[in-house]
Amino acid sequence: MRAFIDDDVIPAEPTLIAEEHSGGTTLDDLRRRAKDLGLWALGHPAELGGGGLGFLDFVYLNEIIGRSEFGQLAVGSASMQDTLMFYKHGTREQQRRWIPPMVAGDIFPSVGLTEPEVAGSDPTLIATRAEQAGADWIINGHKWFTTGAAQAAYCSVFARTESDDAPRHSRVTAFIVPTDTPGFEIVRSIPTMGHDPSDHYEIRLTDVRVPASNILGERGKGFIVAQDRLGAGRIFHGMRWLGQAQRAFELMCERANTRFAHGSLLAEKGEIHRYIAESAAEIHAARLMTLDAARQIDSGEDFRVHVGLVKFWSARMLHNVVDRAIQVHGALGLTADTPLERMYRQARYARVYDGPDEVHRMSVARRILKDPTAVPWQ
Amino acid sequence: MRAFIDDDVIPAEPTLIAEEHSGGTTLDDLRRRAKDLGLWALGHPAELGGGGLGFLDFVYLNEIIGRSEFGQLAVGSASMQDTLMFYKHGTREQQRRWIPPMVAGDIFPSVGLTEPEVAGSDPTLIATRAEQAGADWIINGHKWFTTGAAQAAYCSVFARTESDDAPRHSRVTAFIVPTDTPGFEIVRSIPTMGHDPSDHYEIRLTDVRVPASNILGERGKGFIVAQDRLGAGRIFHGMRWLGQAQRAFELMCERANTRFAHGSLLAEKGEIHRYIAESAAEIHAARLMTLDAARQIDSGEDFRVHVGLVKFWSARMLHNVVDRAIQVHGALGLTADTPLERMYRQARYARVYDGPDEVHRMSVARRILKDPTAVPWQ
Amino acid sequence: MRAFIDDDVIPAEPTLIAEEHSGGTTLDDLRRRAKDLGLWALGHPAELGGGGLGFLDFVYLNEIIGRSEFGQLAVGSASMQDTLMFYKHGTREQQRRWIPPMVAGDIFPSVGLTEPEVAGSDPTLIATRAEQAGADWIINGHKWFTTGAAQAAYCSVFARTESDDAPRHSRVTAFIVPTDTPGFEIVRSIPTMGHDPSDHYEIRLTDVRVPASNILGERGKGFIVAQDRLGAGRIFHGMRWLGQAQRAFELMCERANTRFAHGSLLAEKGEIHRYIAESAAEIHAARLMTLDAARQIDSGEDFRVHVGLVKFWSARMLHNVVDRAIQVHGALGLTADTPLERMYRQARYARVYDGPDEVHRMSVARRILKDPTAVPWQ
Amino acid sequence: MRAFIDDDVIPAEPTLIAEEHSGGTTLDDLRRRAKDLGLWALGHPAELGGGGLGFLDFVYLNEIIGRSEFGQLAVGSASMQDTLMFYKHGTREQQRRWIPPMVAGDIFPSVGLTEPEVAGSDPTLIATRAEQAGADWIINGHKWFTTGAAQAAYCSVFARTESDDAPRHSRVTAFIVPTDTPGFEIVRSIPTMGHDPSDHYEIRLTDVRVPASNILGERGKGFIVAQDRLGAGRIFHGMRWLGQAQRAFELMCERANTRFAHGSLLAEKGEIHRYIAESAAEIHAARLMTLDAARQIDSGEDFRVHVGLVKFWSARMLHNVVDRAIQVHGALGLTADTPLERMYRQARYARVYDGPDEVHRMSVARRILKDPTAVPWQ
Repeated sequence: MRAFIDDDVIPAEPTLIAEEHSGGTTLDDLRRRAKDLGLWALGHPAELGGGGLGFLDFVYLNEIIGRSEFGQLAVGSASMQDTLMFYKHGTREQQRRWIPPMVAGDIFPSVGLTEPEVAGSDPTLIATRAEQAGADWIINGHKWFTTGAAQAAYCSVFARTESDDAPRHSRVTAFIVPTDTPGFEIVRSIPTMGHDPSDHYEIRLTDVRVPASNILGERGKGFIVAQDRLGAGRIFHGMRWLGQAQRAFELMCERANTRFAHGSLLAEKGEIHRYIAESAAEIHAARLMTLDAARQIDSGEDFRVHVGLVKFWSARMLHNVVDRAIQVHGALGLTADTPLERMYRQARYARVYDGPDEVHRMSVARRILKDPTAVPWQ
Repeated sequence: MRAFIDDDVIPAEPTLIAEEHSGGTTLDDLRRRAKDLGLWALGHPAELGGGGLGFLDFVYLNEIIGRSEFGQLAVGSASMQDTLMFYKHGTREQQRRWIPPMVAGDIFPSVGLTEPEVAGSDPTLIATRAEQAGADWIINGHKWFTTGAAQAAYCSVFARTESDDAPRHSRVTAFIVPTDTPGFEIVRSIPTMGHDPSDHYEIRLTDVRVPASNILGERGKGFIVAQDRLGAGRIFHGMRWLGQAQRAFELMCERANTRFAHGSLLAEKGEIHRYIAESAAEIHAARLMTLDAARQIDSGEDFRVHVGLVKFWSARMLHNVVDRAIQVHGALGLTADTPLERMYRQARYARVYDGPDEVHRMSVARRILKDPTAVPWQ
Repeated sequence: MRAFIDDDVIPAEPTLIAEEHSGGTTLDDLRRRAKDLGLWALGHPAELGGGGLGFLDFVYLNEIIGRSEFGQLAVGSASMQDTLMFYKHGTREQQRRWIPPMVAGDIFPSVGLTEPEVAGSDPTLIATRAEQAGADWIINGHKWFTTGAAQAAYCSVFARTESDDAPRHSRVTAFIVPTDTPGFEIVRSIPTMGHDPSDHYEIRLTDVRVPASNILGERGKGFIVAQDRLGAGRIFHGMRWLGQAQRAFELMCERANTRFAHGSLLAEKGEIHRYIAESAAEIHAARLMTLDAARQIDSGEDFRVHVGLVKFWSARMLHNVVDRAIQVHGALGLTADTPLERMYRQARYARVYDGPDEVHRMSVARRILKDPTAVPWQ
Repeated sequence: MRAFIDDDVIPAEPTLIAEEHSGGTTLDDLRRRAKDLGLWALGHPAELGGGGLGFLDFVYLNEIIGRSEFGQLAVGSASMQDTLMFYKHGTREQQRRWIPPMVAGDIFPSVGLTEPEVAGSDPTLIATRAEQAGADWIINGHKWFTTGAAQAAYCSVFARTESDDAPRHSRVTAFIVPTDTPGFEIVRSIPTMGHDPSDHYEIRLTDVRVPASNILGERGKGFIVAQDRLGAGRIFHGMRWLGQAQRAFELMCERANTRFAHGSLLAEKGEIHRYIAESAAEIHAARLMTLDAARQIDSGEDFRVHVGLVKFWSARMLHNVVDRAIQVHGALGLTADTPLERMYRQARYARVYDGPDEVHRMSVARRILKDPTAVPWQ
């Protein structure tokens, strides 16, 4: 895997970036090659056509896949959260319909969770509504940051279905909405952090009608579906961030070893030593915390504090390491001649999506204040 | 000025950004309006056709102009470093030729200082060379981050002219190179921080021939020309950064006052209070330090420690404030629906151009270690 | 003043510290000398027997006085907050009795504001109560961090006098309690940050009877008295912190210029450059903000945001600079062979007394969120 | 062990602190009780009379022992670095003489490594010299931060024995100097961070004569002896710091859950959530890094980068957590009524002893720059 990512995917990055706008076959070529090499969909369950790697093994693999932002697209692991979602919560019919083409890389998923009008980190505020109409449901609402919507075959839409009488966390239901359903409209690609168009879409649902059989999981239990997605997903994110950070770190060291200024190589300067040592410590710490959280998930025990700590801490680590690598590169670091400026912009997402840092800190602190044994060192 | 920037320039920003790629007349319209309002070129010396504002008055004005990244383009102050350069170092003929159309906004300048192969912060490393050929000079070299080169009428090219026998800081000469001179080639617009194309260009000079009368200042004294540009320029930068930071701060407060999540307005949350109070302190501190450095320049005394401190400290302030404003906006902060994501990307330049933070810290520290009375509080 | 502090007070510090436990006359000698030199009580109003310096002049002077922790004791300025308190809020009789001996340095004040059981930063929680008994008041309560109580002639005790019907900030009254009043008991000197005994006392008031003429200011208006003390007092604190920080900075630079390790002087190492440049920026910024807040106070306008920013920002600055100076000194910095370890311990108080950082950030943020023009740069 | 530390040692702390000055038997009582409970010298090799716990088991135990600063004294583990030093480098005679009484807790060791005149982190600068005189060696020099010297039976003195012709790291030899040897003089207890007297001593060696049989390890190989001490020692330090940090963290959470101010419990405030979540992350990260470094040591592979990262990172973690716990306690946190102020002062040592942070960052960075595979995640 390391050879494929470093020797095939990374050298193709400039082409892949250019083809985002102009189109091209490079990504498809890489996918074919990944399948040929037996690197395709390794983490998906074997009975679904995947590689059947155990959870922890796949966690480690994400560190390597994450070295390139195109890694998970190239090796077919980007859809894994969705296949697992169907695997765990889907009906037999849903599984039969959606899993095989997704594992094969023929179709792509998307998720409609965040809404522009309300705080995405507080899911009790979801305003999209689904009303029952005979055997069908009619969905109306407004979503954004629906990644990949324009290429997706369906969107998992989270909508309010229950009244205020229901418990706060049992009011939302998950629906599978094929993207060709009438009333499912892609408003625009949202320009973000210099990506214009970006892969993040704004969606409007106007009287979108889906049959009750499109409900994913139980009615009113949408949060459970969402939580399951996010738990393991944050570990995969975290490992890919490590891959990005390690690559930035390597570039920083290479640059320091070759760039001369003010009387010596950068490798001999105290501020650069500081950057390297602090970055090494942060990467190492984030890695150990992420692996520890993965083990906690794997053990079946409560992992919310573990994962919450990883989420806000690793997102900052990623920023810090990339930021220092840019600084060591000087003006070059600001240009697209290295992957750093793009990594820097994408690192900024990490502190917001799946909940901004402040919300994770609040949740972690509240759990520990309520139960002192919830700390991960007990 | 505040009314013009807030009511004319800022509302036009989305159009101005769109026209960067597609072309359009909005910027020209704003310029005309600025001239009509008597806001054009206010800081340029009156005898050159400018508004003749005193240095300190113009410093304050930059805080307002800087609220929009298009401010200085709209009010004709972007060329001021260059007109002052000619005013101070130019021959009568050079002044006559370049200053009037520049003040009028009919032509634009550009600067060829930084080179890709060597550290820009260490000007003793400049590798571009000029060789004497009769009454002319032949320049060969490679520059980048030549901002605005594609629109510029000329480029101030800094080239090595003297041998190693000359003192280290007396080996480089400044040349005025009209951009239509044969051999002056724009290699590309350099994609930077999500700007593609950007306003930063890579330049190659191949046997570029200019007459000796195009030397700016004295032969071998290019550093003096460069230093003069940078001193006051850093103050103007610093004030414009303050304008940007204040605008981000205002957006942050507005958002906090209206966004609800997790049981209350953001305005009632402790982490948000922290963001606001820390940002207010940093903006206030940077502002007082920048104004103090401007007074130091104005007094004619050694300003290098003052300006060095402002440079690295304010660049970080700008990042911090914009970063917190994004965080308070959540997903919205990542999108181009607010100016924040663009400010965030542009703030990253600030810690590199005109010398990376590390170089300024080194210079400041060395001066103080050598002379303890060089601290700004003595 | 600079000569007196640097040449008389600072060299006497080791003796003064030793005499804190064992007793001695060194401080009295210094006081006499300050009087002889015309440096005594310079900030006190001339009509009270002081030097009559204007507020802003005296603010500047505190920066020099603060270079030594014994400075204000040696030049008779420590009681200034109290003499001003009487000057502004006292009756003619109170002024006549307390001001002259305090200005002369014959008696010392103390303040009973903070209580162990409730948050001192939230004065609405004060639990000490005063009940009317004929022409007298009977006070019962528990105070701590009553600095100098063992040497003081009186204590300004803030006690609850009004019922819950009164507005929240009009329930507390200030009383002058002579320390020899029956029932006024010094429980202990509180060991703090390695000072044991320290100058901070725990006090218990049991049926302490004082006449109504001992009320300071109006009944129920104790907060106004307290606020007046704190506003200007925080500026004096802030300036003295600057004195301390500048002295630590000077020691850091001297050490860097003389200490050799790992192949060079510390003065040539990048991490040390960083420490010096960051420290210079923080001292400079804190100084400009403190002076700006002093001018705001002097102008008669609302100074609460200005002073709040200075309070939490300068307290951190002081820690940071002393901390770096220790680090540059290595093991020596941990010992009492330099003043740094004592400055480090005392700097820790600064982030708590007069309200912890968090409370100041909260207050500042709330004011700005309520009124965007409350920022100091408007 | 946890029960003994929490129920016996921690409640005795105020008494133990008081007895530091006045003398007393409480520590001896605790030692006796630890022996009775089978908790004595658990990490010492069984063949030396210790508990024979494996290295990694003992590492974990230090986290618990470290909850109290008196823990390692109470359970006989403070001398472990010295017994292991003899075990590995000592002659049979040295082992016979020094190990048994040290394991029994009858005698105590001390180390003479750091010197006031030179940087302790750069051992090539050691100025203490030993000259051969027949079968004996004559040692002259000046040491400080010789912890426990006044109670110690001997001091391991590192002295220069070889000429400049020898390789830089082969010039120093370790000598066992019984503290009753003529010429071994305790100059003073060095006041440090409010400990006066402290347990750190300044030592002068004047014509101290010891037989060649007192050389520890090989002549000229003193650095190897020193390095061996420091490697495992830093892990034990690191684990005890975790014990301290966890105790501070628990106090912070308890306080937040009970203290009311400004309208709510501290446990409901966003800045406090931040303190708790950041502290939990830092403790967790430091713990995983320390355990990882211990495993690296145990594996026999190069552990210098692992241990270097732990050293500077955990020392800062300890400061940060204790500092936040103090802040949450407000004025109470500054007093000796909680263990926090003492922990705060002692935490400051951690960033200096065994090499200041800057030196560890430099060493780690240099190793990684030389060999990119030296990072701990490879």
